Amino acid sequence: MSETRSESRHARWWQTPARALNTACADAARARQNQLTKPPGSLGRLEDVAVQFAAIQHSDRPRVDPVHISIFAGDHGVVAEGVSAFPQAVTVEMQRNFVSGGAAISVLARQLGATLEVINCGTLADPTTLPKVIHAPVATQTQNFCETEAMTDAQWQQALLIGRAAIERAGQHQAHLFIGGEMGIGNTTAATALLCALTEMTPAELTGAGTGLDSHGIQHKTRVIERALQRHVDLLDDPAAVSRALGGFEIAALTGAYIAAAQAGIAVLVDGFICSAAALCALRLNPSVQPYLIFSHCSAEQGHRKLMTHLEASPLVDLNLRLGEGSGAAVTVPLLRAACALHNEMATFAEAAVSGKLTQGTLEG
Amino acid sequence: MSETRSESRHARWWQTPARALNTACADAARARQNQLTKPPGSLGRLEDVAVQFAAIQHSDRPRVDPVHISIFAGDHGVVAEGVSAFPQAVTVEMQRNFVSGGAAISVLARQLGATLEVINCGTLADPTTLPKVIHAPVATQTQNFCETEAMTDAQWQQALLIGRAAIERAGQHQAHLFIGGEMGIGNTTAATALLCALTEMTPAELTGAGTGLDSHGIQHKTRVIERALQRHVDLLDDPAAVSRALGGFEIAALTGAYIAAAQAGIAVLVDGFICSAAALCALRLNPSVQPYLIFSHCSAEQGHRKLMTHLEASPLVDLNLRLGEGSGAAVTVPLLRAACALHNEMATFAEAAVSGKLTQGTLEG
Repeated sequence: MSETRSESRHARWWQTPARALNTACADAARARQNQLTKPPGSLGRLEDVAVQFAAIQHSDRPRVDPVHISIFAGDHGVVAEGVSAFPQAVTVEMQRNFVSGGAAISVLARQLGATLEVINCGTLADPTTLPKVIHAPVATQTQNFCETEAMTDAQWQQALLIGRAAIERAGQHQAHLFIGGEMGIGNTTAATALLCALTEMTPAELTGAGTGLDSHGIQHKTRVIERALQRHVDLLDDPAAVSRALGGFEIAALTGAYIAAAQAGIAVLVDGFICSAAALCALRLNPSVQPYLIFSHCSAEQGHRKLMTHLEASPLVDLNLRLGEGSGAAVTVPLLRAACALHNEMATFAEAAVSGKLTQGTLEG
Repeated sequence: MSETRSESRHARWWQTPARALNTACADAARARQNQLTKPPGSLGRLEDVAVQFAAIQHSDRPRVDPVHISIFAGDHGVVAEGVSAFPQAVTVEMQRNFVSGGAAISVLARQLGATLEVINCGTLADPTTLPKVIHAPVATQTQNFCETEAMTDAQWQQALLIGRAAIERAGQHQAHLFIGGEMGIGNTTAATALLCALTEMTPAELTGAGTGLDSHGIQHKTRVIERALQRHVDLLDDPAAVSRALGGFEIAALTGAYIAAAQAGIAVLVDGFICSAAALCALRLNPSVQPYLIFSHCSAEQGHRKLMTHLEASPLVDLNLRLGEGSGAAVTVPLLRAACALHNEMATFAEAAVSGKLTQGTLEG
């Protein structure tokens, strides 16, 4: 506490602690789980989810509605190094697909009855032809981080605030769950560079196929990331500098959103590889965010499983997904809803007049 | 084919082959997946699910509605050996809880908009006080299979037909997915005995805590199963005899239901340990059932992961569930629905005017 106070003159918004969890509600929820008509613990992860939401929502009857989904899009200077299997035009083309309803996340958001918004954080192609997209461009794209820092400090802070603004809108919608998604040709390269910089892992361990590189493409991408890490070797101890130098506008926006969600007391369902890199940045900038982050799935992208192990996170599902857009998180929302519905609606042993467990004495007899 | 014909005089209904899959529809579905606005393969298991449903439903636009859930309940003579942590009264008490809406499966069925029916296959307590339960008792309980065969052949066939009748009702509801659930104090003991008899695995490897035995209880249960296997050692080469001698009314009903579903062309979502034992019996009695079975989750019950490996099955999720009642299967239905919605509703690259993948020449340039 005294440390926080002494630093307060210099504290930035992203360093403000997350909203406190309500442990009394968590205890009440755990007690209720043990009274419901099932062998204690037999709903496994779903029991833990209900208790976690109870603590986050300060309620012993937690809920997962409404869900707010924000997709952040941005272009990456590092694409000049030939690291992606798709052309950069796709970053804008997919934004059109998101808002016109044909993308995976559009389909899933409809299924969930979720609010879906698309935020252009800075893309090469002219985005103003997309009227349903929120325009907040930081620049036309990041700088090529093999040559210089991807963003200036002002740009990085601007990108973080794009994320915070999304959480303000989520709050206006009374969202009980936030999903961030991303779109940005080249962003598995940026995410991999971030992970290498923030952990002990190497590009050779973490670099994967992204949207579909072959083995030569992956080797090339690995070398590009190695060059970038070499270029910025002096910054690697400072998470803010790492996020700025090796990240992307949409990744920084996700980082800002995750932090702001935790500060606002809104649970976050983290999507795959890129989002987990943004979550790692959020955790390094503000460790109090941790209990608000639920990792939804283990991505097929090479480095994701290693990152999950590094974070001691157990993603809810492992379905070999690697699409991004928040799609993996959206797919798992019904698991969270089932967890809360079971918690709230199941009868207790007393209510249902169902017999409890035998004593071991009876059992062994 | 000639073999089938020559045996037809002796063939029983459960040996009739499953409805043929439609490979043209599967090919069309796979081709469509590769045209949707995502990197090819990036929806992982969800793509496979959509293609599997296309083949099963003879449609390139598959669906997972309506869902029909049948819970089969039965009591077990082997409980006299002290193998369960709960009293046998729970088998009937939980049937009341299913139909009055307080059980886990009741909550989940409501969430899914699924038809839920409860079938009493034979329980000790008087079940006629439960008006919303379908009464089809084979007997008050099975025989203790440590002493004699659990069922007579006539009882076993009667139990299989209970399952087939459930599939007839599912068909009347135009169900596109069938979930079987089970309730029966003592039925992890029966299921473990079945698995040991039908595979190379031993009671020591497979026996688990069931509804909540401690380590002494598990040791005792292991010895009970070893005695049962010794008692019926002459039958172990015949899957029908194994299912009859070591199973249960509700397990045989599940086996009959799985076979009848495949014959009717209805996809089956298999729940946890007990249901997987019933599915193994179905596969041994009629291997053509295999493509209709989707394994929903890897149960926390000791032997389930080993059985999944034995069957080369990859359950959709692993959430440490061990409740039964069909609950784990019900929890995963939204994943199947998401798979079909994505398949049916996503835009193609052409429809959305999104650029495709670069050639590797461009990439490496």
